[in-house]
Amino acid sequence: MIIITAKSIVKQDKIDEFINLAKELVKKSVKESGCISYNLYQDINYENMFTFIEEWESKKAIKSHNDSDHFKTIVPELEKLREKSADINLYKKI
Amino acid sequence: MIIITAKSIVKQDKIDEFINLAKELVKKSVKESGCISYNLYQDINYENMFTFIEEWESKKAIKSHNDSDHFKTIVPELEKLREKSADINLYKKI
Repeated sequence: MIIITAKSIVKQDKIDEFINLAKELVKKSVKESGCISYNLYQDINYENMFTFIEEWESKKAIKSHNDSDHFKTIVPELEKLREKSADINLYKKI
Repeated sequence: MIIITAKSIVKQDKIDEFINLAKELVKKSVKESGCISYNLYQDINYENMFTFIEEWESKKAIKSHNDSDHFKTIVPELEKLREKSADINLYKKI
């Protein structure tokens, strides 16, 4: 299993737009084969800080996620709403 | 439920020491009341990058975690092994 965290700092005036788009990505991604879980979280102290926490069965599942239409359509739009690029890590449990 | 992520960049020569200490913190923290899950992850691309991903029932459970002997003993020692302070966020699911 591989865990992905993707932390975003969103422009203050784009928070609602980010949430709506991100929720759409979540809805479509959880249906993908190899996706164990895919959730969106908002920082309880900083309303413009978010992270996805995703659990994937394999690198292969992640690759097909990155190649999916919804990823290729939504992720560039999310990028426009961020103050800077997302902070992305791929982790293994130890 | 509150999710905490605590991301660490560890000094290259302190990785094993960090893992051993962090595992001890995990072992003791998962036993605490209000702790839903508490796990340690290592970045699959950067061996000195780690994150804890913790799930807590409430702020109260987090407070008692932060006041616990094992937290007060281990966390300052982990801090000495990092290149810079941990990047900590408290999240709610949306």
